Amino acid sequence: MTVPVGIIMGSKSDWPTMQHAADMLDKLGVAYEVKVVSAHRTPDLLFDYAKTAQARGIKVIIAGAGGAAHLPGMCASQTSLPVLGVPVKSRALSGLDSLLSIVQMPGGVAVGTLAIGDAGAKNAGLLAAQILATSDNELLAKIDAFRAAQTESVLAEPDPRTAL
Amino acid sequence: MTVPVGIIMGSKSDWPTMQHAADMLDKLGVAYEVKVVSAHRTPDLLFDYAKTAQARGIKVIIAGAGGAAHLPGMCASQTSLPVLGVPVKSRALSGLDSLLSIVQMPGGVAVGTLAIGDAGAKNAGLLAAQILATSDNELLAKIDAFRAAQTESVLAEPDPRTAL
Amino acid sequence: MTVPVGIIMGSKSDWPTMQHAADMLDKLGVAYEVKVVSAHRTPDLLFDYAKTAQARGIKVIIAGAGGAAHLPGMCASQTSLPVLGVPVKSRALSGLDSLLSIVQMPGGVAVGTLAIGDAGAKNAGLLAAQILATSDNELLAKIDAFRAAQTESVLAEPDPRTAL
Amino acid sequence: MTVPVGIIMGSKSDWPTMQHAADMLDKLGVAYEVKVVSAHRTPDLLFDYAKTAQARGIKVIIAGAGGAAHLPGMCASQTSLPVLGVPVKSRALSGLDSLLSIVQMPGGVAVGTLAIGDAGAKNAGLLAAQILATSDNELLAKIDAFRAAQTESVLAEPDPRTAL
Amino acid sequence: MTVPVGIIMGSKSDWPTMQHAADMLDKLGVAYEVKVVSAHRTPDLLFDYAKTAQARGIKVIIAGAGGAAHLPGMCASQTSLPVLGVPVKSRALSGLDSLLSIVQMPGGVAVGTLAIGDAGAKNAGLLAAQILATSDNELLAKIDAFRAAQTESVLAEPDPRTAL
Amino acid sequence: MTVPVGIIMGSKSDWPTMQHAADMLDKLGVAYEVKVVSAHRTPDLLFDYAKTAQARGIKVIIAGAGGAAHLPGMCASQTSLPVLGVPVKSRALSGLDSLLSIVQMPGGVAVGTLAIGDAGAKNAGLLAAQILATSDNELLAKIDAFRAAQTESVLAEPDPRTAL
Amino acid sequence: MTVPVGIIMGSKSDWPTMQHAADMLDKLGVAYEVKVVSAHRTPDLLFDYAKTAQARGIKVIIAGAGGAAHLPGMCASQTSLPVLGVPVKSRALSGLDSLLSIVQMPGGVAVGTLAIGDAGAKNAGLLAAQILATSDNELLAKIDAFRAAQTESVLAEPDPRTAL
Amino acid sequence: MTVPVGIIMGSKSDWPTMQHAADMLDKLGVAYEVKVVSAHRTPDLLFDYAKTAQARGIKVIIAGAGGAAHLPGMCASQTSLPVLGVPVKSRALSGLDSLLSIVQMPGGVAVGTLAIGDAGAKNAGLLAAQILATSDNELLAKIDAFRAAQTESVLAEPDPRTAL
Repeated sequence: MTVPVGIIMGSKSDWPTMQHAADMLDKLGVAYEVKVVSAHRTPDLLFDYAKTAQARGIKVIIAGAGGAAHLPGMCASQTSLPVLGVPVKSRALSGLDSLLSIVQMPGGVAVGTLAIGDAGAKNAGLLAAQILATSDNELLAKIDAFRAAQTESVLAEPDPRTAL
Repeated sequence: MTVPVGIIMGSKSDWPTMQHAADMLDKLGVAYEVKVVSAHRTPDLLFDYAKTAQARGIKVIIAGAGGAAHLPGMCASQTSLPVLGVPVKSRALSGLDSLLSIVQMPGGVAVGTLAIGDAGAKNAGLLAAQILATSDNELLAKIDAFRAAQTESVLAEPDPRTAL
Repeated sequence: MTVPVGIIMGSKSDWPTMQHAADMLDKLGVAYEVKVVSAHRTPDLLFDYAKTAQARGIKVIIAGAGGAAHLPGMCASQTSLPVLGVPVKSRALSGLDSLLSIVQMPGGVAVGTLAIGDAGAKNAGLLAAQILATSDNELLAKIDAFRAAQTESVLAEPDPRTAL
Repeated sequence: MTVPVGIIMGSKSDWPTMQHAADMLDKLGVAYEVKVVSAHRTPDLLFDYAKTAQARGIKVIIAGAGGAAHLPGMCASQTSLPVLGVPVKSRALSGLDSLLSIVQMPGGVAVGTLAIGDAGAKNAGLLAAQILATSDNELLAKIDAFRAAQTESVLAEPDPRTAL
Repeated sequence: MTVPVGIIMGSKSDWPTMQHAADMLDKLGVAYEVKVVSAHRTPDLLFDYAKTAQARGIKVIIAGAGGAAHLPGMCASQTSLPVLGVPVKSRALSGLDSLLSIVQMPGGVAVGTLAIGDAGAKNAGLLAAQILATSDNELLAKIDAFRAAQTESVLAEPDPRTAL
Repeated sequence: MTVPVGIIMGSKSDWPTMQHAADMLDKLGVAYEVKVVSAHRTPDLLFDYAKTAQARGIKVIIAGAGGAAHLPGMCASQTSLPVLGVPVKSRALSGLDSLLSIVQMPGGVAVGTLAIGDAGAKNAGLLAAQILATSDNELLAKIDAFRAAQTESVLAEPDPRTAL
Repeated sequence: MTVPVGIIMGSKSDWPTMQHAADMLDKLGVAYEVKVVSAHRTPDLLFDYAKTAQARGIKVIIAGAGGAAHLPGMCASQTSLPVLGVPVKSRALSGLDSLLSIVQMPGGVAVGTLAIGDAGAKNAGLLAAQILATSDNELLAKIDAFRAAQTESVLAEPDPRTAL
Repeated sequence: MTVPVGIIMGSKSDWPTMQHAADMLDKLGVAYEVKVVSAHRTPDLLFDYAKTAQARGIKVIIAGAGGAAHLPGMCASQTSLPVLGVPVKSRALSGLDSLLSIVQMPGGVAVGTLAIGDAGAKNAGLLAAQILATSDNELLAKIDAFRAAQTESVLAEPDPRTAL
């Protein structure tokens, strides 16, 4: 059975961040696969993954990595599928290195980059769903509902002094 | 007639950057509209634009802005369409402020961010097309062709010492 | 009953920072309202809040937010009231993203920005009172007294080696 | 004759930046005085200026400086008037040093900080007027008109491809 | 009795950092005074301190401060004595703001700046002694001895794998 | 004929920087090949280049790239040869992005990184020669001679006031 | 007995970082020596170390330091051996100061710089071995084996959701 | 004849910056010597210079350098004389690398650091004179006069709008 979203990450240690992408896709009912694919330690796997993703039915790839984060950009170099990059917070530079390594791609090969860390991973899941929803009205309705609920949850508790 | 991509920017002065997005869409045969929409000077227009985009047939929005670049994120707050953000190079801080203002979105509202400046705008056009191509095989073929030609152009001139 | 100061913030989690603004206003006897208004999750509420603030008697708005902090600037886009921005410390970039997102506004829409974090929130409360005091001599006297007491508290303990 | 706004700057060379504050006040019909007051080269003048400003009828002080920009903060240390700070773009660090030196004030003495450079100076003039307008409805109307015209000027030229 | 070194700091909370300056002076047998002098909360005291320091027999001033650290530079604006600045580590920006606020002085008023935090404070004490030693051979000998001992302590334990 | 050093770069536009590596190798009599190999536009070529380099007799690879500079690290992922990385100065961020993208490699795949720009390229050539010289005494002598001459050239003109 | 690699560091406190270089060399069967050599506290020892290293049989030097990290560059100034620099994470600036102090060498004296912290130290050990392996096929085989095992370990656990 | 101040710099190209130190000393009637001493290209000369400076009558050393600026710190490692460091503006990073390389010295070896570029060089000359003036009342009077004139020059032209 094919799934429309592939979530890859450079190391098992990126999972606590990247699971927020998975959680968001779960919430929206979008199927996905999850795999550790290291640009530096398993480069051939990465190229194989990226080159075959489309044929396997993947429509959007989410790639998370930290430090000299080459995974999203190298993945994008081998597929015409949309690739979303999540900069994982790094130990010394707090993800600024990850962010710049992912976002500053040269013209001709694109990575849609999200925020550093958990929020970025969550939004990668959301944006992947939004991309799929450009041709899936049912999914679009789910996203609209998620966002309406999100708005409601803020409106429901307007006073920050209660219930911290 | 509806067009699938909307390109908006905070100021006319962003056009020299943002036209690279338009050029890329032209190259791939994707129709688009172009409009100055300022988050700070025309906020109501921005909300109107974002709220009605989907109904008007827009499928992907590209938003470019510089400095305290609120346009992409605020646009994303009013639509479930995918929004791509282009950080325009700013005078004092060279676009680092634009980049952080666009990419560091909180979980729940996503902006797919590209590189600072011309390359980022070009890639926003490319990524918009890649997104549309998730349900348009003809467009996908065009993107594949564009990328193959791009690869060819590098392979054709392997020696940097000639013809600079 | 109208209050002259509105304190808004993007999330309940900003309250531990923003309460320093409220504390300062309490100390100076200035009434205020407090509300969670998220630029990204409740954009319509934000516009409504900003557009109606003046009519409701608000004279100064204090807005705190973190990361891609669009709340202060977007609030300022919809009102001619003075808006003060507090960059909340963010997880990955320690509030540098919040600061640049708030302070680097384009010419024509202004946000008076304070320091990152608690000190900035405290000073937002103080500056709001100073603004009100430009037409309220009684309040000005309270501010003068607060500052005199602050000076006294330093002068009273000149030796840092005691009583840390 | 008293004027409500004082514009001071650390050096004559800051004038090309700071004149944007003066231009904005001119546009809104707000009177002001302009003076070079250097925190480091004329510290006594600075203290004298700040201490006597209120008695001379000044209601808001705009202070611009670059590098280790101490003028706004030290001015604020000697008056309860609202002080607005403009970080002037510096040669080596493009105003990042100016910005941090001005905005990162400790709790208890506030400076409302604007953007680096010309846009910041313009907005300092605007925010000073907004502060005065909290007790001056006629001025408020002028600001509203300025902003409406600003919005109009964007709406009037929606297509960036014409007349760059 | 006069002492040749004055150690001032913006807040009692700077003492854990600044005591390293005092410790170094103790080690070298140089007398000093210690005082909290806040640029922003006690500006008149600061000016009084700086203006009278030379007459009271002070030869070198060490000033430590954090954030928008104006103490060293403003002290230097009121005395021809050498002023050494210690950037205290700040909460959000780890002392980068303190460093730039202290070191980026304009031409004509100098602050000799040391490293951020404890090491900088220690070295401020050492440099103050070195300055005094330009006319005090006995002190110079003590400094030479301190440095020789410091060198010895490294040479005595060349293997880092033992006794961590 | 085999050559011991391979110089690759992501784009023809990197040549004005990278030629300093070539010049240094020329000066030391070390043969090299030069090729444009783009990580993003010709990923298969890059992998092929890196995988076959050793068999073709290459002993050290110098890779220069700018922005999201993935070339050196991805090259290193496919060969056990030493890889030296040169961060090319980028338009918006002056090479800080290039530097972090190259140097912040995860443990297990190494890139020896040089300075941003021309000096870094020159030193990449020098370090490549130093590496080869670990088993080539004749080359070592040439390097020693180059360095002695370099030292001489400074010693010969000790007064900077002449002949700028 | 001579050893081919020298590991030096500025302080005993750098050992927890630098031991990752030693561990890697152990893993690859490369002998090394370890020594604390402080550029600032034992400069003569540093020069002596660097000048005599080659004669003692050292082929590659690994130097780790933090803050104003002068050890690698000054070591390189006194030897034609390849010098690899490891930026140790510093307290205030997280190693950004260490990195820039090491990597930004002027043309003519090179330091091959690795990542900040543990990963950088590990890779310094690896790169030192790769350099030695340019003339040692047995060592090259060990490196190839290490890397193959590294690749295997990722491939063996492709699912990050298990066994964190 | 001995001179009390030594000005050294890493390269002839630093002279346009460092001459501001010389100019200031000329203005105050303080004799000095000027020499190119490169930490990396002439390390032995540097150590010789630093070790013999005191015996030759030097009382203060001013050292300017850019990039990985090791000259001031390594000079300080070999003398107990006060060493003042001037970060020369660098090509890629505008002197931020120079600044951090100079100022972030470890505890035990101090460099009094001035601002990046011309202003820093000017202030190094001034601070050197202030140091000498701790035991030279005639020089102190000259410094006081210089500063009084500097203050006068600001007071004489209070209106920035004239004579730019």
